Amino acid sequence: MTRELPGFEAVADSIRALDDTVHQRVRLGILTVLTETRRADFGFLRDTLELTDGNLSRHLQVLEGSGYIAVDKVFEGRRPRTWLRATDAGRAAFARELRCLRALLDRADDQGRSP
Amino acid sequence: MTRELPGFEAVADSIRALDDTVHQRVRLGILTVLTETRRADFGFLRDTLELTDGNLSRHLQVLEGSGYIAVDKVFEGRRPRTWLRATDAGRAAFARELRCLRALLDRADDQGRSP
Repeated sequence: MTRELPGFEAVADSIRALDDTVHQRVRLGILTVLTETRRADFGFLRDTLELTDGNLSRHLQVLEGSGYIAVDKVFEGRRPRTWLRATDAGRAAFARELRCLRALLDRADDQGRSP
Repeated sequence: MTRELPGFEAVADSIRALDDTVHQRVRLGILTVLTETRRADFGFLRDTLELTDGNLSRHLQVLEGSGYIAVDKVFEGRRPRTWLRATDAGRAAFARELRCLRALLDRADDQGRSP
């Protein structure tokens, strides 16, 4: 070390608290949309985030597996439709992620490294 | 969709602009430390971020492979030492990451979802 700044343990705390399930960039996008809406359908999410069906499906499965989103497959008339919504656990996990990111950004601001 | 908020294309822009090399949470921690210091040695990074040797090595290789850090292995007396520092490209990539994260956080603030 050339100089020791105090508080690097806070960086360790932040990166340990980041949840890979939420932090991964596509899933961060999915949760950004789903926490702003009551629900969204598969096609809307796919088109909004410019993902392929397969890529979106894979990330939705991870989020569903963690209980962060709920998937509701319905028929509307003859048309199958897949609705997605963030669960309370998903909203809480997203809020935790934002809190960790804010801590890292505030630190960068203090150091004058932030744009 | 139950309601259409404007500007979801900005979410797509942000998540597309996030660079997995920098965004991954351990590497985000490594770059947080290295952009605050002129250089840090391997043991300091490992202890500060509470990582194993193997885990830190793996992530350093990814960052070095992208040209975001430089690795300098030296002998100080008889003691081998590995110095790490962020390159200009690494500092720029870290600044881009912070910019994307800030855009996502500002959005969450606007929606009143941020803590």
